[in-house]
Amino acid sequence: MSDARLIALDWGSTRLRAFLLGADGAVLETRQSGQGASTLAGKAAFEQAFSAVTADWPGLPALACGMVGSQHGWREAPYAPCPADAAALARHALKLDERISILPGLMHDGGQPDVMRGEETQIVGALALHPDLAARACLVLPGTHSKWARVEAGRVTGFATHMTGELYALLRQHSVLARLMPADGASPPSSQAFLAGVDAARKEGALSHQLFAVRTLGLFKRLAAEQLPDYLSGLLIGHEIAHELAGGAPGRLALVGDPALCERYALALGRFGVTAPLQLDNTAPAGLWQLAQTMGL
Amino acid sequence: MSDARLIALDWGSTRLRAFLLGADGAVLETRQSGQGASTLAGKAAFEQAFSAVTADWPGLPALACGMVGSQHGWREAPYAPCPADAAALARHALKLDERISILPGLMHDGGQPDVMRGEETQIVGALALHPDLAARACLVLPGTHSKWARVEAGRVTGFATHMTGELYALLRQHSVLARLMPADGASPPSSQAFLAGVDAARKEGALSHQLFAVRTLGLFKRLAAEQLPDYLSGLLIGHEIAHELAGGAPGRLALVGDPALCERYALALGRFGVTAPLQLDNTAPAGLWQLAQTMGL
Repeated sequence: MSDARLIALDWGSTRLRAFLLGADGAVLETRQSGQGASTLAGKAAFEQAFSAVTADWPGLPALACGMVGSQHGWREAPYAPCPADAAALARHALKLDERISILPGLMHDGGQPDVMRGEETQIVGALALHPDLAARACLVLPGTHSKWARVEAGRVTGFATHMTGELYALLRQHSVLARLMPADGASPPSSQAFLAGVDAARKEGALSHQLFAVRTLGLFKRLAAEQLPDYLSGLLIGHEIAHELAGGAPGRLALVGDPALCERYALALGRFGVTAPLQLDNTAPAGLWQLAQTMGL
Repeated sequence: MSDARLIALDWGSTRLRAFLLGADGAVLETRQSGQGASTLAGKAAFEQAFSAVTADWPGLPALACGMVGSQHGWREAPYAPCPADAAALARHALKLDERISILPGLMHDGGQPDVMRGEETQIVGALALHPDLAARACLVLPGTHSKWARVEAGRVTGFATHMTGELYALLRQHSVLARLMPADGASPPSSQAFLAGVDAARKEGALSHQLFAVRTLGLFKRLAAEQLPDYLSGLLIGHEIAHELAGGAPGRLALVGDPALCERYALALGRFGVTAPLQLDNTAPAGLWQLAQTMGL
């Protein structure tokens, strides 16, 4: 551990991931805990979670991103406004004490405000790993609240959030559609049903109307019960993509995050004529390292 | 009760409403019960609910509409296909026994199948009460699953369902948006926030994106917590209307159903230039009477 340089924390709502980074940001050790920011209340709880996850690691500087910096986090690190590059994010970082700093989220006001916390760091990581994206690219970070971020000249110029993952979970678990579906994970994913959902979304009907078809397609046995979750997923992801691509080609497109989910988006993007987007796994450690360098930690 | 002629049952998923009808369909008595079709399982349970709600009424012919005729109802009355008029619905009615008949739902296949059960009877009632609608009209029946039905020459030619009410309930109760909102009914409705939501929907962004603004508008205090449910409602209803009106003017427009909800739709429609639509309260008794006449009950 003598060459360890930084403790990097990707501290989201439901999960805390800690990385011990060495020279050049190499990941020496990774730890994960269920002590996400939404599970903790009060300064002492965060301090304890930090101590637990970094137990017996050297007392290095620590940099954290994500919901840990929200209103209900350890302490609030106000959003940096778009456009923003790594230097702007570093300037807005909050020094919690001599050792620990929290990165800000990003805010974009395109008529109505939009926000991210954690994804800005993944974007910095993606640009550090693929400097060719910095000139002009669209970075897609799928998830509960998917982000579509536009990058130009190394800066995030704007972004939009889609509640795609959350809508899927709500409809899958609590809606009238759920009653027709088998339990989660009861059958292997059906890419055929998924793509049928994407194709329906490409026709650009109202989402609130097309969702009801998940019910009727099941009712009339045009889709088997075990295909309905994938059809629903395709419908929701298809609507997200249709709207984001409506403004024209977004430059180079990169998918960042969970590989299985990125694969789903890549499959759907193919139906829109976007082939072989760059796919990157979690780039948060690279982003935290990059931002720590910028901050001189 | 000597002039009673028909027992009319509006038997939905969660609620059973029974009407004792006299000559010309006049409502002599109304009863309501929580024994909706989704709360009952098996023939005996339906028989018992029927006996209970009609206790001490004369042994008249009875006609029922709604989810009572679904796969999981008393007995399945298969859907009649669009286009359909009152005569077609009457032909598809299911004779349960010497006394009781169940009306079919309506099915429309515009690429993907769409269905209604109960609303077809309300539509027949609306046309009986307002024969001027029969030539060409658009009937909107707002609710958990809102219906937009096109009527031409006395027939329902097609319709579309929107899961607007259900999406509202899911997002209001279970989503990340719910956390920012006060408890239901904690404050009077804000028509200003409702119309702000409608106006946002008129801009035709992606629903999955605009929903996230409910969170950020709260986060940045641009809307007060108690305004957020109405903003959400406006957003969802606005999207529904925007898509349904996109194809051009639908002829005369009538709203059928719960007066408070119809008032909300009328307010929203005003922002789309549709003023003073006809508003009708529950037309199910009139529809059941009309269909009973057609069937010769």
